[in-house]
Amino acid sequence: MIPNLPVDPARIAEDIADLAAITEPDQPWTRRSFTPMFLRGRDYLTRRFKAAGLETRIDAAGNLIGRRRGKVPGRGTIMVGSHSDTVPGGGRFDGIAGVSVALEIARSLGDRGIVLEHDLEVVDYLAEEVSVFGISCVGSRALVGTLTPETLARQVDGVTLAEAIASVGGDPAKLGAPLRTDIKACLELHIEQGTVLEEAHQAVGVVSAIAGITRIEIVVVGRADHAGTTRMGHRLDALAAGARLVLGVEAIATRLAAGPKHFAATVGEFTIEPGAANVIPARARLLIDARAEVRPDMLAFVAEVQALAQSVAAETGVSIDPPVTISDNLPTPGDAHVLDVLDAACDAVGARHRRMASGAGHDTAWMARVSRSAMIFIPCLGGRSHSPEEFASTDDIALGAAVLLEAVQRLDRELA
Amino acid sequence: MIPNLPVDPARIAEDIADLAAITEPDQPWTRRSFTPMFLRGRDYLTRRFKAAGLETRIDAAGNLIGRRRGKVPGRGTIMVGSHSDTVPGGGRFDGIAGVSVALEIARSLGDRGIVLEHDLEVVDYLAEEVSVFGISCVGSRALVGTLTPETLARQVDGVTLAEAIASVGGDPAKLGAPLRTDIKACLELHIEQGTVLEEAHQAVGVVSAIAGITRIEIVVVGRADHAGTTRMGHRLDALAAGARLVLGVEAIATRLAAGPKHFAATVGEFTIEPGAANVIPARARLLIDARAEVRPDMLAFVAEVQALAQSVAAETGVSIDPPVTISDNLPTPGDAHVLDVLDAACDAVGARHRRMASGAGHDTAWMARVSRSAMIFIPCLGGRSHSPEEFASTDDIALGAAVLLEAVQRLDRELA
Repeated sequence: MIPNLPVDPARIAEDIADLAAITEPDQPWTRRSFTPMFLRGRDYLTRRFKAAGLETRIDAAGNLIGRRRGKVPGRGTIMVGSHSDTVPGGGRFDGIAGVSVALEIARSLGDRGIVLEHDLEVVDYLAEEVSVFGISCVGSRALVGTLTPETLARQVDGVTLAEAIASVGGDPAKLGAPLRTDIKACLELHIEQGTVLEEAHQAVGVVSAIAGITRIEIVVVGRADHAGTTRMGHRLDALAAGARLVLGVEAIATRLAAGPKHFAATVGEFTIEPGAANVIPARARLLIDARAEVRPDMLAFVAEVQALAQSVAAETGVSIDPPVTISDNLPTPGDAHVLDVLDAACDAVGARHRRMASGAGHDTAWMARVSRSAMIFIPCLGGRSHSPEEFASTDDIALGAAVLLEAVQRLDRELA
Repeated sequence: MIPNLPVDPARIAEDIADLAAITEPDQPWTRRSFTPMFLRGRDYLTRRFKAAGLETRIDAAGNLIGRRRGKVPGRGTIMVGSHSDTVPGGGRFDGIAGVSVALEIARSLGDRGIVLEHDLEVVDYLAEEVSVFGISCVGSRALVGTLTPETLARQVDGVTLAEAIASVGGDPAKLGAPLRTDIKACLELHIEQGTVLEEAHQAVGVVSAIAGITRIEIVVVGRADHAGTTRMGHRLDALAAGARLVLGVEAIATRLAAGPKHFAATVGEFTIEPGAANVIPARARLLIDARAEVRPDMLAFVAEVQALAQSVAAETGVSIDPPVTISDNLPTPGDAHVLDVLDAACDAVGARHRRMASGAGHDTAWMARVSRSAMIFIPCLGGRSHSPEEFASTDDIALGAAVLLEAVQRLDRELA
């Protein structure tokens, strides 16, 4: 415990424990967007926001926002927050820690009678995790105007995404352009979901960039011959070719990851057909998820994967169409000025810190389209996340809260 | 066309064409065991058997049998046949060619007024292909007494295998011990389902052995970490480990296949979990199907796969339990005397022939438990089988029929 922090660790711990209790009972901890359990979590947060004196509303994008008015009308808004939804069987801290910390900043300012020049907004972004609609960061995408009509029309079990946004209090008819032009800075605290801070014994990661995410699909077409009668060397085995692609992707990614910037690639989806014991696999489909802190690494990766597919096809005789990029988001560097402020805030609070990239996507990457934005990470045990074992200590969260509070106050002065 | 064969190619072609017309209309050619379409095929065969003067019945195992009595009561039976069921979307020749050839042998003997000393039986074995009950060679297994009560109790859609056998005319209460002790020789013609004969420009393959089939399951347990935040080199990626196993199995099998005896191994089933784009695969399951003409090759393969699993686990850090052998059938050599008779019959008929192994399983492998048994292969186009493109020429089938007819007559004399 670091003494004399300007935030109250007990209140943060209480927020997190109370939200942990609001979970699907048979699958802790689960509070997926658009479910009744999610709305129960929102009800709880709304009460906590109001108890902290915040003017609370749902914006057109379905984000829960609590405002603490500043002393200079028209100066604009400093926004702080994260998300309260979870993956199925997820953890108690991913997103929730950042919402609680944002709320604690407002409470701390209130306790000490500090009124900022800017409005302060505490935000719980809608549907940061991939929901049944198959898309992440719904609330922040919608807020910055990038949610397309096609995406809003996606239908699951007879309900469109637009209807789902309306069901949580949003107004999908107003989506399509940025909802806000008044946000002057946007901050977020999140658990790292990796082991960089833990291994380096650092309290805070100042996120230099949120990695770009590119997804690439590869389809291998072999031939469904008889497993018993077709001689080795006379086969067009789509699985054997797919295995070469998996190991090739791993080798390329490992090489790029050895460079100075964060890079990772994963084959997360891999299926074969027909999948019968006595039939040589005729088809394999791979979906590669690649993350790059800097764009040149991603461009190099894509080119090397194209060459890999050609060489595996040539080596094995199977047919491999050119890999298809099915989504491609650029890296988002943190705002240089905000990053400097975050570094200085860490020093002022006494938090050991380092710059690092985020391999995961976050709402902040979308908010950067309408505002100076950056985020900080705090350590999480063993890097485990999206699982019930996910853990971050109250001390680490509170120290991160103190850093963000300091940064908010510095930005409030410097952006004036 | 080879002139002056003692069989009628036109009758064989008619059998095959008529059976091809009895197919699920939307998926040629499909006549799966226990379906109404299968029973329509059986009705057709029953009429053809009877038209050939055969005493026709369904045995307790559900096999359709047509008997042509011999002139010496108690001398025993020479059985010839194959199966009329198909895989889904299968071909017109796999199994059917062998049933038609057996029938043609009986017709030819009848046409020429030849009465053997032995009874001749033409057989359509029940459910040679894997049916909904997940097992192959139901009729031959049941005939030789190896169908266990547990297998007979397998239930699919509320129907047990025993009930299914009864539904086609069998008597499952009588199963459990060999149904027959009178069979003195058992022969089968089948399409090769490979390219050995085609490439060697041979008309007949005299099957020296039916490969043993061993199925081995391997489960890899890694860790479901975040695909974006977990650094390369810090992962326990079950797919990457599974890919190493796939390529290791391929390498071991390729080495064994370079020896003098048939060997093949295939990973036909391969699944990962959770199979989400942004999650490192936590689990992979492989099912290996291995076929060996001789047992030492299989024992070597199993030992090498055990070592492979250990080395992949050590190399990658994932957990791999020792591979589990979930089924293990020994190779079945053809009866030495019957093989010699088949070679001699090929020479007598003028069919270019060679000895070869069968990589596929066949009813004959089970019948070898109660009788001298062996089979012959005829070429099929490009080795394609279990697909609509499967093709064997009427000339090749008729030549094979003449070989089997010659062998039946020689065995009839020699076994007296």
